[in-house]
Amino acid sequence: MPTDTAILELETLTAEQAIAQLAVRSPLIHCITNTVVQNFTANLLLATGAIPAMIIDPSECQEFAAVADGLLLNVGTLHHEHCPTYYHAAENANRFAKPWVLDPVAVGGLTLRTEFCRKLLALRPTVIRGNASEISVLAGGAATGRGPETQMSTEQALAAAQQLATHAESIVVITGEYDLITDGQRTFKVSGGSALATRVTGAGCALSALCAAFATLGGDRLINVASACWMMSRAAEYAVQHAVGPGTFAMHLLDGFAQLREAP
Amino acid sequence: MPTDTAILELETLTAEQAIAQLAVRSPLIHCITNTVVQNFTANLLLATGAIPAMIIDPSECQEFAAVADGLLLNVGTLHHEHCPTYYHAAENANRFAKPWVLDPVAVGGLTLRTEFCRKLLALRPTVIRGNASEISVLAGGAATGRGPETQMSTEQALAAAQQLATHAESIVVITGEYDLITDGQRTFKVSGGSALATRVTGAGCALSALCAAFATLGGDRLINVASACWMMSRAAEYAVQHAVGPGTFAMHLLDGFAQLREAP
Amino acid sequence: MPTDTAILELETLTAEQAIAQLAVRSPLIHCITNTVVQNFTANLLLATGAIPAMIIDPSECQEFAAVADGLLLNVGTLHHEHCPTYYHAAENANRFAKPWVLDPVAVGGLTLRTEFCRKLLALRPTVIRGNASEISVLAGGAATGRGPETQMSTEQALAAAQQLATHAESIVVITGEYDLITDGQRTFKVSGGSALATRVTGAGCALSALCAAFATLGGDRLINVASACWMMSRAAEYAVQHAVGPGTFAMHLLDGFAQLREAP
Repeated sequence: MPTDTAILELETLTAEQAIAQLAVRSPLIHCITNTVVQNFTANLLLATGAIPAMIIDPSECQEFAAVADGLLLNVGTLHHEHCPTYYHAAENANRFAKPWVLDPVAVGGLTLRTEFCRKLLALRPTVIRGNASEISVLAGGAATGRGPETQMSTEQALAAAQQLATHAESIVVITGEYDLITDGQRTFKVSGGSALATRVTGAGCALSALCAAFATLGGDRLINVASACWMMSRAAEYAVQHAVGPGTFAMHLLDGFAQLREAP
Repeated sequence: MPTDTAILELETLTAEQAIAQLAVRSPLIHCITNTVVQNFTANLLLATGAIPAMIIDPSECQEFAAVADGLLLNVGTLHHEHCPTYYHAAENANRFAKPWVLDPVAVGGLTLRTEFCRKLLALRPTVIRGNASEISVLAGGAATGRGPETQMSTEQALAAAQQLATHAESIVVITGEYDLITDGQRTFKVSGGSALATRVTGAGCALSALCAAFATLGGDRLINVASACWMMSRAAEYAVQHAVGPGTFAMHLLDGFAQLREAP
Repeated sequence: MPTDTAILELETLTAEQAIAQLAVRSPLIHCITNTVVQNFTANLLLATGAIPAMIIDPSECQEFAAVADGLLLNVGTLHHEHCPTYYHAAENANRFAKPWVLDPVAVGGLTLRTEFCRKLLALRPTVIRGNASEISVLAGGAATGRGPETQMSTEQALAAAQQLATHAESIVVITGEYDLITDGQRTFKVSGGSALATRVTGAGCALSALCAAFATLGGDRLINVASACWMMSRAAEYAVQHAVGPGTFAMHLLDGFAQLREAP
């Protein structure tokens, strides 16, 4: 590891308690997200017990900020005309003290989203979830990504993540071969999952929505967000046991989430 | 039941005849619907033999009104700039005497869609399909919903549905634990289905599209629309027998529709 | 066949080599496509080893043209405000000598898309993929389609396809009961597949994206594009063996693509 910070492991019982709390609370998550993954994101939230709402009109977004328990902003199919709606949604989440997550899809290679995500950083997202390249770019590094995919390793991006977490006062989640969840001081590592998840569009985007749901829970927020990653990894391990390829994997992944929710 | 109206049961043979008629006619259904559920809605219509078309440009919507057999308006991801397109589509459906369905997703809590759906009521939708809370709001009741979900029971909303049906000269469908389909005079009840359908985003939205398809058929329209609900309930029962959770349920649900279509 | 041109058969080994080359190269495909099929298109590309990117902002589309390996333009949910973005994307693909595919969904019956697709023809798409009706309309025939579905046979449209290929200097792909892939001089035929593919929305749209991916490969482009059709047919044959209906078919179809990619 490039830093001298100890990497913490999340205990199974702790994650299971967060999952159970989520199912009981059924937080309402406003997702302003890309049109490619809206359906999968909604289904994943529903499988966990959270309730998705995908409202896009500026005035309705403003009204909904008072009602929603948490917010996701995902810039995958950002259009410059939508930027004010995204920005005001983050402002309103802050005003109502609701947690919000930034998913900076493909920042680095594309100017509009890169500049806009940097602007959103000033609003201090509760959570930032991205791959190693995206997190590195947001932390000030040079762009390396070729579209939404990345070659940088999770380990290489840890120092950038810790720096970004401290600077933006956010929890930063790097997902990849394994996941790191850091607030700049403490860092959790979540291992496992399945490489098949990289063959399903929106697995990462839906995880960001799930981070928003877990960020609404009571208790230690860093642990709660790490529990979202833990739930994804366990659901992926369930799915890969039942799947033949990426198509069947996606369906079993949703089943896996539901089984984790229903576990006694 | 809160009213003294007798609740009618739909006969299996009657529903099967409507399903067979749908498969033969293959009605072309123009769906102006939310981006979360477009894919699932299209696949569900295709599974029944209906043909979906998801056209959004104002001029193309106008041209298409003369060609389509039926229309769905779903306000799930309504944007104020799209309202005129929705409104003119309903006007054109009326002009060409084509049935159209209003799915008033999450009315009550959000001003834009609530006011807009009330405006659409003046155009007398052929069918209105919603959950108990949405129907109650449209009938003039106070908003109770928290986003698209609802706590009000189907039974509690029946009187509101009957009132709304009479007022708007529409068939009103309340879906929930069971479904009620009323024109204000006669009311059908469709039972069965599966609670797993509530864990799949767009099951209700897709049912609204199916109501539009069944509303195009010849014969008793109230019975035809009730047959759409009956088909959903039977398909859900097929799916729950083959599914482990919500992911596999969604796929088997589509298979269930296809099997009902192909039944001799 | 209506012409005296010999119809060529694609050899299995040739198609397999193209599929293997695609998996190694992982081309980045910019998909400007309709919102109904974005998710399925992305998942299908990922299953083959290609990388989808669904960027819609005009300025980002312009930047991305230098990075992407290929482009898909699909007019399924075209809005007149988006036409300039589509048009400039095609111009930029030409400037950077990147192949691009036009999927003229439902041209003929709707004026905006019909006129716009004809305008795009002047930019000489690398590939045009449609059903018999769509290809016939683009070649100058009268509109016959009723929405995105068609009654014209693939065979009837071959002469139109050859004429269109010569006129637009494009590879033209007609998909239907079987597929014909022509550059006006040589014509390949790909048989097989499954009728269930017509019950899954976006199977054709996703094939167009796959044609863009295969068009980026080295070697004989006509053979590479025919290999995309071959891969779809083989994946559909895998899927129909494992599916009960259209819901399970769609998932197994994605698995089928992944298995073909991974084949030794």
